[in-house]
Amino acid sequence: MTYRLHNFFRSSTSTRVRAALNLKGLGYDYIPYVLRNGETRNADYLARNPQGLVPTLQLPDGTALIQSLAIIEWLDEAFPDPPLLPPDALGRARVRGLANMIACEAHPLNNLRVLFRLRDQFGADEAAQRAWFTHWVTETFDALEAMLARDPATGRFCHGDTPGLADLCLYAQVWNNRRFDMPLDTWPTIMRVFEALDTLPAFQDAAPPRQPDAA
Amino acid sequence: MTYRLHNFFRSSTSTRVRAALNLKGLGYDYIPYVLRNGETRNADYLARNPQGLVPTLQLPDGTALIQSLAIIEWLDEAFPDPPLLPPDALGRARVRGLANMIACEAHPLNNLRVLFRLRDQFGADEAAQRAWFTHWVTETFDALEAMLARDPATGRFCHGDTPGLADLCLYAQVWNNRRFDMPLDTWPTIMRVFEALDTLPAFQDAAPPRQPDAA
Repeated sequence: MTYRLHNFFRSSTSTRVRAALNLKGLGYDYIPYVLRNGETRNADYLARNPQGLVPTLQLPDGTALIQSLAIIEWLDEAFPDPPLLPPDALGRARVRGLANMIACEAHPLNNLRVLFRLRDQFGADEAAQRAWFTHWVTETFDALEAMLARDPATGRFCHGDTPGLADLCLYAQVWNNRRFDMPLDTWPTIMRVFEALDTLPAFQDAAPPRQPDAA
Repeated sequence: MTYRLHNFFRSSTSTRVRAALNLKGLGYDYIPYVLRNGETRNADYLARNPQGLVPTLQLPDGTALIQSLAIIEWLDEAFPDPPLLPPDALGRARVRGLANMIACEAHPLNNLRVLFRLRDQFGADEAAQRAWFTHWVTETFDALEAMLARDPATGRFCHGDTPGLADLCLYAQVWNNRRFDMPLDTWPTIMRVFEALDTLPAFQDAAPPRQPDAA
């Protein structure tokens, strides 16, 4: 048995976990789901992940882990090298704070299911969905840019020169933004970090276009 | 100097951190902000927390920590007793997963700023905002109920008989739901855990109505 990642190429939370697995050097079976077709809403999938969301990481013994950040923290505890969090508690608080800015404030508002709900409840067309998406990314990215730009703890990546938890979220969110053709030059530090991450094979191989289910 | 918690009585993320500080037995100065009046959008506040969100925990040396889950993880590392996470990695993955179900899927969609945005962008009136709120809480709570009810790891609280990270999120979210008069008896396990938490002084004292700025 091996690791099995139930995921979707374009899902930002899936991208985070793929890059984390790659950084840890763990191979995995890629199990794709077409979210738009409700493939994660069947009884089989829901037994593993009652939210019907991706990703789910199945361990070799069958245990199913859910929620990307919880999965990544588990990976970092089970396979400490290379670390995805800094060694000091304040550094970890900074990195988790940056990661949660994206994971708790930007991404949840811009999920496919949220855009569908805007369409169904408010008749939001593509332009309205794009305005919504752009609004929330801008709220978070303006603050993220300020925090990264002003803090000497920022290095080649979000925290020093080792890619970690915050970088996983940043990388995946920038890919998400590209899908909506957002102009990204407003956030030079974020984009500098993204470009640096995008030179690393662990991140390159996790990028949406490289996945087997990419359209 | 002491700890200073910049927060708002009704904010669910603030409730989480108040209860965590109480569980750790840490006293703190309560600094209230009226979110509706934009009191977290001034230059002073933004210097500490560029997102302009609550809560911010200021440490005795002035360091500002942001994002409730990052703050709670820091508290748990700096003051390990009593622990807010179980001792085993898989237990921690479960608890973080349950916490993130609320923190990354339910709460972010139901923030005051999101409801305001629905009003401004789509003309959502109170009934439409309530339908939106109810929809996302139901999505998450149905899954949370299933996960808690079926798993022998659930005890008096979300994970065994010690209150922890997932309980902080659950307790705060149930308070949030009450504000929208959501019927809560649909989720018996969640409510059983809530009622058990609500007997503990650390949680009681963190509840919105007990705060100095409660209306």
